[in-house]
Amino acid sequence: MSKKNAFYAQSGGVTAVINASACGVIETARKHSDKIGNVYAGRNGIIGALTEDLIDTSLESDADIAALKHTPSGGFGSCRFKLKSLEENKREYERLIEVFKAHDIGYFFYNGGGDSADTCYKVSQLSEKMGYPVQAIHVPKTVDNDLPITDNCPGFGSVAKYIATSTLEASFDVRSMSKTSTKIFVIEVMGRHAGWIAAAGALVADQGIPVVTLFPEIEFDQEAFLAKVKANVEEHDYCTIVLSEGCHWPDGRFLAEQGTRDSFGHAQLGGAAPVVANMIKDALGYKFHWAVADYLQRAARHLASKSDVEQAYALGKAGVEYALEGHNSIMPTVVRKSSDPYVWEIGKAPLSEVANVEKFMPRDFISEDGFGITDKCREYLYPLIEGEDYPPYEKGMPKYVTLKLESVARKLSDFEL
Amino acid sequence: MSKKNAFYAQSGGVTAVINASACGVIETARKHSDKIGNVYAGRNGIIGALTEDLIDTSLESDADIAALKHTPSGGFGSCRFKLKSLEENKREYERLIEVFKAHDIGYFFYNGGGDSADTCYKVSQLSEKMGYPVQAIHVPKTVDNDLPITDNCPGFGSVAKYIATSTLEASFDVRSMSKTSTKIFVIEVMGRHAGWIAAAGALVADQGIPVVTLFPEIEFDQEAFLAKVKANVEEHDYCTIVLSEGCHWPDGRFLAEQGTRDSFGHAQLGGAAPVVANMIKDALGYKFHWAVADYLQRAARHLASKSDVEQAYALGKAGVEYALEGHNSIMPTVVRKSSDPYVWEIGKAPLSEVANVEKFMPRDFISEDGFGITDKCREYLYPLIEGEDYPPYEKGMPKYVTLKLESVARKLSDFEL
Repeated sequence: MSKKNAFYAQSGGVTAVINASACGVIETARKHSDKIGNVYAGRNGIIGALTEDLIDTSLESDADIAALKHTPSGGFGSCRFKLKSLEENKREYERLIEVFKAHDIGYFFYNGGGDSADTCYKVSQLSEKMGYPVQAIHVPKTVDNDLPITDNCPGFGSVAKYIATSTLEASFDVRSMSKTSTKIFVIEVMGRHAGWIAAAGALVADQGIPVVTLFPEIEFDQEAFLAKVKANVEEHDYCTIVLSEGCHWPDGRFLAEQGTRDSFGHAQLGGAAPVVANMIKDALGYKFHWAVADYLQRAARHLASKSDVEQAYALGKAGVEYALEGHNSIMPTVVRKSSDPYVWEIGKAPLSEVANVEKFMPRDFISEDGFGITDKCREYLYPLIEGEDYPPYEKGMPKYVTLKLESVARKLSDFEL
Repeated sequence: MSKKNAFYAQSGGVTAVINASACGVIETARKHSDKIGNVYAGRNGIIGALTEDLIDTSLESDADIAALKHTPSGGFGSCRFKLKSLEENKREYERLIEVFKAHDIGYFFYNGGGDSADTCYKVSQLSEKMGYPVQAIHVPKTVDNDLPITDNCPGFGSVAKYIATSTLEASFDVRSMSKTSTKIFVIEVMGRHAGWIAAAGALVADQGIPVVTLFPEIEFDQEAFLAKVKANVEEHDYCTIVLSEGCHWPDGRFLAEQGTRDSFGHAQLGGAAPVVANMIKDALGYKFHWAVADYLQRAARHLASKSDVEQAYALGKAGVEYALEGHNSIMPTVVRKSSDPYVWEIGKAPLSEVANVEKFMPRDFISEDGFGITDKCREYLYPLIEGEDYPPYEKGMPKYVTLKLESVARKLSDFEL
């Protein structure tokens, strides 16, 4: 068997640790240079493969590749570009195979969430049919934590740690000011469909913080919510609200959609946090502050979870090892053996069972009243935020790597996206 | 001379390191227990003194007091309560002196910004006149960094480090997504009058990030701003905007005030960030994301600057030492001896020169076009964010202390605020 090259691409929204997976893939491939050739990376994700815009990772130093492990964001660029179904756009899949063939690529490592698992699965199937079989391995990544089978998804643990910590810190702040000033603090967190990140914010209840959590899984009940906030303020003089961006009314409208118009008639500008903060002010009169963490939360490598970094790396490494063992069309997974002490190992799942399955918070992870989490959820979450893994600093700021990203010479004609 | 007790209070918006100053005051007082009695703290700041709601810090363990050094927020509670002028409300000042007299308090350590420096100054003057002289020492604290004479203010360095780091991380994130997705990231930071915090965000330019900074010191020029953003996106494919909450139009209106109304006719909900993000979208069509860091920035003890923590502690310690040397009506200050290597020492300033003076960014710290910072500003800022000082963690979250906060028995009648 001749030595094949590998292709690696990052997909969708990036995280604090997706580069740790890239590091795991590339370092492991380098260790097996007898069996695996160059690792080419897609510039800006799968678009790089379609347009034959490949990055030669062999031109990056060992030190720079190692530094990916502590660098947030997508070091090779990512994209939001979902390949259509095979029926609708077979042309794109065929192009991928052509590019792989032209560059002697026999391994496809695709680092992403649900959509990329699906793409990965189709590439593996189609390449077989087209007579140029490629081993397609999906390396999981998503702050949304919504992939099935794997215990959790790299990227999530670090966001969870950041949101739990930030919510705790801001709650301490409000607690010290509540006598004469702010009584309500609303933090809006990511999670359009699944409330995993909001659940991490709810952990501050264990430190005595009065917190009300709003999940996308639970229809918003304004009356019950305001009553809960009022009770908290009456007892503690303040209240923290952790709000999923995907929180919605019973009719499906997001809380953020308030029909707000500016003076030019433009649609509303803000997130859900100011809506909820003002709703409380209007009903109960409490002074508020609100924060929208947005990208700060998923990029916060400075506060990454050690478990998360280790798993992200291990899943990238396992992807290459499984490929070298001959596996195809799989996703390496995290298998939890024990929560306390936290013990995990790497397993694998067939992509046919991963593609197009979304994992929500189980109902028994959310408290009966819908505003908090259960002990079962706590037991699940704590191990994922365990440990710190600080990046190096220089002149007071984290020292993150920017790669050289040199192109591989093209061999094919242009391709219209 | 009989051994007098001390009174300590936290004032105004709290920070990641105001408790480090409290720790410096209390630990130093404990070391000099031959000369100084108990340290009583005001519950919720100066209100605690006015209402004779004092906390007996002697009942807190050495370990808990030491833990204040790594705990954000105001451990004894703070308040936004400005004493009126002596002429307008002499009654409040007289009450303070009565409470001090009743509890044999001879030292007043007031930990705050400009307003509290003024109060501190007046207490020292009035107590003399009333025949119960109190040594009043102002321990500086403000994330706004707007106190005069001192090189910088405790609290600022840690916010600066947090904003510089978060802006860098989010910019890396956007850079990796810009091909098909977000091209504009707006981060709104604190600073209603002074742009010090925004200036810290501008440091990311040194790491190759295309960044446009909007200072409260510079009137907003929409045309020039949009041209700058456009040029950045055309060159780099993305652009980061660091936006002071106090950024305003030439007529003085804040950018946040857009006359926005919701469907019920309520006034606008959002901050300045969504306004600027939508302005760019409308004019240039770029996809955006925005974050409002709000309290997360000033509470972020998990990413405190080591310089800042050390100075906060040293200023609290110096306050007590100066008092024991007989000084009165002063504020300990940070004196910069050298920027590279960073060398500083503690000095002192008379409160008469501190009270009611606000320090803005010097014009030569802001670049000529008004959208960035100069080398002079860089030289000033870098030492302040130098070094990391991580809190201890337990179960994945920072282990912050909550004090017992036991009350001192009251001796006086009630006082109406």
